[in-house]
Amino acid sequence: MSQVYWTDLVRRLSPYVPGEQRAGKNIVKLNTNENPYPPAPGVLQALASITGDELRRYPDPESQQLRRALADYHQLDLAQVFVGNGSDEILALAFMAFFTGDKPLQFPTLSYSFYPVYCDLLNIEQNSHALQHDFSIDLDAFTDNGGGIVFPNPNAPTSMAVSYEQIESLLARAPNTVVLVDEAYADFGARSVTSLVNKYPNLLVSQTFSKGRSMAGMRLGVAMGSPDLIDALTRVKNSFNSYPIDAAAQKAGIASLQDDAYYRGTIEKICATREQTIAALLERQFKILPSAANFIFVSPPKENAEQLFEWLNQHEILVRYWNKGDLKPWLRITIGTDSEMQQLIRCIDEADFL
Amino acid sequence: MSQVYWTDLVRRLSPYVPGEQRAGKNIVKLNTNENPYPPAPGVLQALASITGDELRRYPDPESQQLRRALADYHQLDLAQVFVGNGSDEILALAFMAFFTGDKPLQFPTLSYSFYPVYCDLLNIEQNSHALQHDFSIDLDAFTDNGGGIVFPNPNAPTSMAVSYEQIESLLARAPNTVVLVDEAYADFGARSVTSLVNKYPNLLVSQTFSKGRSMAGMRLGVAMGSPDLIDALTRVKNSFNSYPIDAAAQKAGIASLQDDAYYRGTIEKICATREQTIAALLERQFKILPSAANFIFVSPPKENAEQLFEWLNQHEILVRYWNKGDLKPWLRITIGTDSEMQQLIRCIDEADFL
Repeated sequence: MSQVYWTDLVRRLSPYVPGEQRAGKNIVKLNTNENPYPPAPGVLQALASITGDELRRYPDPESQQLRRALADYHQLDLAQVFVGNGSDEILALAFMAFFTGDKPLQFPTLSYSFYPVYCDLLNIEQNSHALQHDFSIDLDAFTDNGGGIVFPNPNAPTSMAVSYEQIESLLARAPNTVVLVDEAYADFGARSVTSLVNKYPNLLVSQTFSKGRSMAGMRLGVAMGSPDLIDALTRVKNSFNSYPIDAAAQKAGIASLQDDAYYRGTIEKICATREQTIAALLERQFKILPSAANFIFVSPPKENAEQLFEWLNQHEILVRYWNKGDLKPWLRITIGTDSEMQQLIRCIDEADFL
Repeated sequence: MSQVYWTDLVRRLSPYVPGEQRAGKNIVKLNTNENPYPPAPGVLQALASITGDELRRYPDPESQQLRRALADYHQLDLAQVFVGNGSDEILALAFMAFFTGDKPLQFPTLSYSFYPVYCDLLNIEQNSHALQHDFSIDLDAFTDNGGGIVFPNPNAPTSMAVSYEQIESLLARAPNTVVLVDEAYADFGARSVTSLVNKYPNLLVSQTFSKGRSMAGMRLGVAMGSPDLIDALTRVKNSFNSYPIDAAAQKAGIASLQDDAYYRGTIEKICATREQTIAALLERQFKILPSAANFIFVSPPKENAEQLFEWLNQHEILVRYWNKGDLKPWLRITIGTDSEMQQLIRCIDEADFL
């Protein structure tokens, strides 16, 4: 490849690498933290009801109906709600809007691996804080530096949550700093800080329809914060792409919010399956971090995670492995259905190297 | 609004303002260049066929099936095709990838108003070239400056096209400069330069499913260029948002490409309606630029475009008007159905101020 036309920016990028989307009937896919259950029936009905007129016209650039539904759901005002093409797009726009000042952005060293990628893309200085020995995020290390703070809660890939009280205390002592709490996995056990949006103008919460709401295929994320923060996000969005949420995603999102009972049921099932899987792996001497997510972070007894990853992969069970640094003894495993997790345990029991 | 947390970047933005998406049964919407006809029936069937599994899983981040279908359609290789969330996202990513060097970006002074917005967002120096007296783009003014060149063909809002030969001559004499030809409206009369992609490694062509293919609601754009350019675009995309095209849009796009006969029919109808509308307005002494698009750029005999804009608006006929500089005597009018354009002409005939 000649790369004649590559700018310095393109050259310096190390793009994010998402988990493999391998297809195949027998594959047990536990590598990208997808929900094993389909979305509520109303979501599919919403897609089937789309008309030619809705397709030929531009969607509402401000996604008002969807944002109104989200505002009602979270007991916020319309002006406190923003939607994006997946929470990844929201993170990218928020990094542009709030973290491109002259101070470094703070985030945990072991965290969502897209954060440093955004920093490279947007030329943002990074200040990462090491996790504590038990892998929990050390919120005390974060300072009111004015450059910005971002962390996932629960954290990925560790699956561990910090408490509502810890986050409130950080918000209170960092009033000059935008704190972005990335709650992609909060449906599975962490307490959301959405209710603090009215109290702390420096808080931005991002959530997604991809995990608890089984809509990874539709690309829909939400941000909630003070009108001041949402207005800034909207300005950046309208300088990048006016209509990122298509008509299908807007309709599907609204339909999803209308059937909360369904999602409470599937989330409960996933949490029950998680506890059973944890029990089975503890019996087999695995180390497992306390999970508040729809995935677990585990280390086999001899810490030969790479070998187990390969073994599972050969048996068409996909999990996530990072061959680097402190992550080497660990695997991240998505919680699937009971039957999928039983297949995982059977495959582990057949491995004679453990 | 306190704007406490706004960065310098957010403050300096003047976001793009899309045309109004007013709803209502009686509104004749000729303000955002939407297609008056629905997409091919197969597109709606594709959306209705989406399964829970397709929704709960991430879409293919590389949109391989859709890109393969596009490559076949345009007789290119997979590595020469990129897709984005509307051609606006493609433009934004291309500006990031190719125009953030230290040389200014060249584009026509009167052109798609999103170009200077991207420049503000990405801190790109602008060098705009005035149109000629007949409103055509003066391609001879563009130089091989290495900073980049972008123009729409046909141009918006003028509706006028430059020729294939003029573009080829520019590509040949600007080998050090990426030339982005924005062909959003090319289906309606301009000759596409897609076939030059194999010959000129500096050519990037962007197209959209929003206009000729009646899919503005689904947000789908295409870029075609050398593998070197497409690779750079992909690196930027994977540093911003890995999965911008949802499963519904990928399926709908593939279905659209399978029914070209349908689109040839609707495009032909729109072009016929355009010629009838032009004839009717010429009879009424309007000035009209030669249109190769699904819209026309017209000036009423007394040049009182703003008054006509207000009059049409009061009668629920929306057209686009910019109250600035050289644009003041002009209106941009989308070509709708025959019946919609007859309503427009009737409404014009009822205006006693013309």
